Amino acid sequence: MILILRSGATQEQIDHVIEHVEALGFAAHLSQGTHRTIVGIIGDEERLRHAPLKAIAGVADVLPVLPPYKLASREAHPQDSLVDVSGVAVGDGHLAMIAGPCSVEEPDRMDRIAEAVRASGANIFRGGAFKPRTSPYAFQGLGEDGLKILQQVGKKHAMPVVTEVTDPRNVAMVAEYADMLQIGARNMQNFVLLTEVGKSQRPVLLKRGMSATVNDLLMSAEYVLSQGNPRVILCERGVKGFDNATRNLFDVASVALVQQLSHLPIIVDPSHATGRPELIPACARAGLAAGADGVHVEVHDCPEVAKSDGPQALLPAQYDELMGQLRGVAELLNKKLPDSQLSRT
Amino acid sequence: MILILRSGATQEQIDHVIEHVEALGFAAHLSQGTHRTIVGIIGDEERLRHAPLKAIAGVADVLPVLPPYKLASREAHPQDSLVDVSGVAVGDGHLAMIAGPCSVEEPDRMDRIAEAVRASGANIFRGGAFKPRTSPYAFQGLGEDGLKILQQVGKKHAMPVVTEVTDPRNVAMVAEYADMLQIGARNMQNFVLLTEVGKSQRPVLLKRGMSATVNDLLMSAEYVLSQGNPRVILCERGVKGFDNATRNLFDVASVALVQQLSHLPIIVDPSHATGRPELIPACARAGLAAGADGVHVEVHDCPEVAKSDGPQALLPAQYDELMGQLRGVAELLNKKLPDSQLSRT
Amino acid sequence: MILILRSGATQEQIDHVIEHVEALGFAAHLSQGTHRTIVGIIGDEERLRHAPLKAIAGVADVLPVLPPYKLASREAHPQDSLVDVSGVAVGDGHLAMIAGPCSVEEPDRMDRIAEAVRASGANIFRGGAFKPRTSPYAFQGLGEDGLKILQQVGKKHAMPVVTEVTDPRNVAMVAEYADMLQIGARNMQNFVLLTEVGKSQRPVLLKRGMSATVNDLLMSAEYVLSQGNPRVILCERGVKGFDNATRNLFDVASVALVQQLSHLPIIVDPSHATGRPELIPACARAGLAAGADGVHVEVHDCPEVAKSDGPQALLPAQYDELMGQLRGVAELLNKKLPDSQLSRT
Amino acid sequence: MILILRSGATQEQIDHVIEHVEALGFAAHLSQGTHRTIVGIIGDEERLRHAPLKAIAGVADVLPVLPPYKLASREAHPQDSLVDVSGVAVGDGHLAMIAGPCSVEEPDRMDRIAEAVRASGANIFRGGAFKPRTSPYAFQGLGEDGLKILQQVGKKHAMPVVTEVTDPRNVAMVAEYADMLQIGARNMQNFVLLTEVGKSQRPVLLKRGMSATVNDLLMSAEYVLSQGNPRVILCERGVKGFDNATRNLFDVASVALVQQLSHLPIIVDPSHATGRPELIPACARAGLAAGADGVHVEVHDCPEVAKSDGPQALLPAQYDELMGQLRGVAELLNKKLPDSQLSRT
Repeated sequence: MILILRSGATQEQIDHVIEHVEALGFAAHLSQGTHRTIVGIIGDEERLRHAPLKAIAGVADVLPVLPPYKLASREAHPQDSLVDVSGVAVGDGHLAMIAGPCSVEEPDRMDRIAEAVRASGANIFRGGAFKPRTSPYAFQGLGEDGLKILQQVGKKHAMPVVTEVTDPRNVAMVAEYADMLQIGARNMQNFVLLTEVGKSQRPVLLKRGMSATVNDLLMSAEYVLSQGNPRVILCERGVKGFDNATRNLFDVASVALVQQLSHLPIIVDPSHATGRPELIPACARAGLAAGADGVHVEVHDCPEVAKSDGPQALLPAQYDELMGQLRGVAELLNKKLPDSQLSRT
Repeated sequence: MILILRSGATQEQIDHVIEHVEALGFAAHLSQGTHRTIVGIIGDEERLRHAPLKAIAGVADVLPVLPPYKLASREAHPQDSLVDVSGVAVGDGHLAMIAGPCSVEEPDRMDRIAEAVRASGANIFRGGAFKPRTSPYAFQGLGEDGLKILQQVGKKHAMPVVTEVTDPRNVAMVAEYADMLQIGARNMQNFVLLTEVGKSQRPVLLKRGMSATVNDLLMSAEYVLSQGNPRVILCERGVKGFDNATRNLFDVASVALVQQLSHLPIIVDPSHATGRPELIPACARAGLAAGADGVHVEVHDCPEVAKSDGPQALLPAQYDELMGQLRGVAELLNKKLPDSQLSRT
Repeated sequence: MILILRSGATQEQIDHVIEHVEALGFAAHLSQGTHRTIVGIIGDEERLRHAPLKAIAGVADVLPVLPPYKLASREAHPQDSLVDVSGVAVGDGHLAMIAGPCSVEEPDRMDRIAEAVRASGANIFRGGAFKPRTSPYAFQGLGEDGLKILQQVGKKHAMPVVTEVTDPRNVAMVAEYADMLQIGARNMQNFVLLTEVGKSQRPVLLKRGMSATVNDLLMSAEYVLSQGNPRVILCERGVKGFDNATRNLFDVASVALVQQLSHLPIIVDPSHATGRPELIPACARAGLAAGADGVHVEVHDCPEVAKSDGPQALLPAQYDELMGQLRGVAELLNKKLPDSQLSRT
Repeated sequence: MILILRSGATQEQIDHVIEHVEALGFAAHLSQGTHRTIVGIIGDEERLRHAPLKAIAGVADVLPVLPPYKLASREAHPQDSLVDVSGVAVGDGHLAMIAGPCSVEEPDRMDRIAEAVRASGANIFRGGAFKPRTSPYAFQGLGEDGLKILQQVGKKHAMPVVTEVTDPRNVAMVAEYADMLQIGARNMQNFVLLTEVGKSQRPVLLKRGMSATVNDLLMSAEYVLSQGNPRVILCERGVKGFDNATRNLFDVASVALVQQLSHLPIIVDPSHATGRPELIPACARAGLAAGADGVHVEVHDCPEVAKSDGPQALLPAQYDELMGQLRGVAELLNKKLPDSQLSRT
């Protein structure tokens, strides 16, 4: 930790700072420059991270030298993590190709969509049963009935399933049906929920919040990891931007940044990032080319009657064409997509 | 609802749109311009709001003509709402002056701070017992013990108390101790939690999320209102901005915008909006001058040892000076601050 | 300047850093913490500011300890600056109340508007003759003819005039007619133009760019100051935000932040900040209450036929009402507005 | 153009709107919904685009149905444009691989860098002679001497050269030396400069402004096109974001969006978008995979002594490795990079 004192800090203030640092059990290393005095604090930074050092009179700024996350950091785990989602490997060269409708709908439709995306090469099936909707009057999902449909359809087509959990009281129940628990963007800093999924031991798909920095995202992952659950997959799904031509602003650089800072896999979600079907293929290719560990796409066979987010869904045929393109990008980077038309064993 | 068709929409597409609209039980009013065809949908917009009309082939854009919130709208309730917080009126000309430390700390300190802010004219006391912290390793609050301290200190100094609730499982428990439940910025779209506080019948202080539009904020209020709880106070506390010289970007215009669109009271929180004590007085004056229904300020008597957010706390003497300034602004706008040094009855 | 080395920087890298610093003529002060090595550079920071120290192998971050602007800084000039605009004092307790239409229009209309705003207490008249328009097909201003009208109307109503200059080739010509030269938001980092107005010796009204930090704004002021022109007035006019309910996001905290960092006056422009007449009064009051040195408002007597920005103009009667409110705020802060109905001498 | 009237618009207001529309020479088509009245305006939208219709009493919103740019639009020119930069084709399947140092420096260094990037497959050489620097005290470029060096080195290595122009008075002079004129991000809405380069008939590389929407970018292109210069290449170089871990936020989706809306080529600049060499390769691959018509990268052989932007430069060897990756992505999309080690004829 480095303290930068205000220009014009008095000797009395400097003395108080040093006294305060030493009282906390650290050594202070003074460096007096031409204009400013700097105090290096020698010792275990973690013990100091949450001390309000910036509130000490005369202190202008406090600079940590270590990242605030530990378990999520690349330093703690230099190798890429590989997360096992009920038999599907994700990370360290293995790609998660997640597809399915926004909401779980009626069983026949789910079956048709699952069959189609499986044939195109998807290896994880998605669908929301508990939907966080901006409006209290919008469709909120089928609940546990939806989970049953999702589980059944996933089993039939040999794909593990991922679904969103929004309520800490439901984590255990959702975990009975789902192979992976999704934390949505709006809940990325719902620390109560993060703590619960951290206890569940199910893999967690953690979506980046709309105004979360990469540091914030890794801190939220740290919540899950610190509960003893190491199976976290991150997801870039766009952040809030000023150009409303797209639903969000797809921050593709965050993929590379996360991979420098952390060992956790990170996938991209071009469906939510853009909100526009015609932009999804370009962003899916971009995400994979940037090095993402997978792609999450919403697919629906009749978007004009979808229960939610119909306008951003790809048709199965569009998804199939996209998967053809993605296969090429994956090979270029020496990553392999699951074969299409082949059953997972 | 207005549908704008794509330029070059075919007659077949136009016919399908009209058919689709009529099948939903609405009348369609066609307007063919020089370049585009527009379809006005005649009927109850609410029933259509969540239909994926934009996913219909040939539809370029869907424009609602009514706001998506109902109970929160000015149309539904032309008069300003007045919220009663255990005897303190907020809204419709009555100001909420909320002050206290970020976290509930030991009883003696709480007592000293409460006495000071009460003397300066605060009428609601604050303190967090369940703290949503970015880091799992940071102080998470005193929990129920903190609530007891807060309640006791509030009673002693004749101020109702407000505290944050973060877990739907705790709402009933927190509501036993607190006069008002705070939903923090990170939980503004935690719809599960909003639903629970909507059922609680305690007044709710709903803080704006860091990337929430004013529309999003009012939709979250609608969640609470739609559960039958009409006592919602909104709070502007800064949104995410690109200039990290301040912690957030204080959106003072949102105060006036909310007051046009909604009848709900809205207060400002310059402590979180700026994160810098030296900017708090200017922003507090600005918020009140813009028409806010109150000001929320964090106050601590020894910021350098505060359990959380010490660096942004005002000292009691600074708060007292600020309250003198705010009294002048309030009078200018014909609003009245509680007298200082006087007990509430 | 402080260099923070990468964790794991080798001894060879550390030696190279020190060598490099010493070769530049500075002393290096090494501080080896538990996890990181920090190098304090002792000497005149200005000489190092533009050296690419961050590109040296092993350097993770470079932290300046002084602000990058000098002439604009509060340190260089502890007293508030007072700018004389052809007899109207701005700054250090004196308020600039700037009003007028977006574009200069026909003489009769200009005369009517000037008379009205003068009667309400405006002390500087505005109007654009060279308009930076997003579209090449939109009205681009009356050019030099507009300047003549503006000058004449200003003289008749005893108000100095401010108008935008957009072309470095026109600075001398515009300066013949105008008492103050405006640099618009889109040109805030047009350094060629800043240099020209810096040479002109006319007061400069420098508007903040839509994505400029406060630091960027002060650096642009430094361009003008460094040419020998000390008469710069800054203007907060909103930055780009994610909520398109308002045209821009009015950053009222920047007023207080600028006043801490700099001695230059700063005014607010709620017309461009909000783009909505119904929000202008609240934001004007907020800006003044935050401590701004003046308010800039667009006024037009028939917005529905205005040549530009009609939808955001206040009517003269609305401006008059606003000025009544602002007079109250000004008095509260011991600042004085020019009397209405009285001629300036 | 569609006018949406306020709910509660009076019959008198509706009549005035229709009268106003008809007085402008258009037909009005009234559509009265359950809650709102909508007025469709039939006729040539261009003639109405700049009329302040939103300022008419009773009008809540004005919705154009056509994009505000014409020459830049895909409708006006359904085929991709191909821009000839002194023999190098850009667009319609041909990639611009632009590389070189941020600033033009001494001839020997320029020669070494040009030789290296040419060998790696670059086909256009870059270097700034007039640098728009945030600080007036920073290196401002070598001026005309720099242009001479750039031209000479480009010729020697058979690459056309691109360089930034910042002053409308210099356009003709810069155009004598440069094969393509660059408009930097800070000047994207410097309409005076856009008009001058529009007259010059040199190809123009137009970089997106830091807070420009895609619509703004296309409007700035329209300025150039409307002067009779059809040779515009757009460049996505990152927009302002809230996460300062990267210099800007690389908006890769804008590539696909521009290609839908416009026929103009668009390239990406991952150097400025990220400001971090370690993220440049991932973003370069992402941009090309999204469909960009080229990649612009800053390369320097000794970043720690570079005159500007050293910390974000790639070394020649890093650039060479990146070009190997980009060749694979280009082939995947059936686009072809120039061969490395081969002279252009």
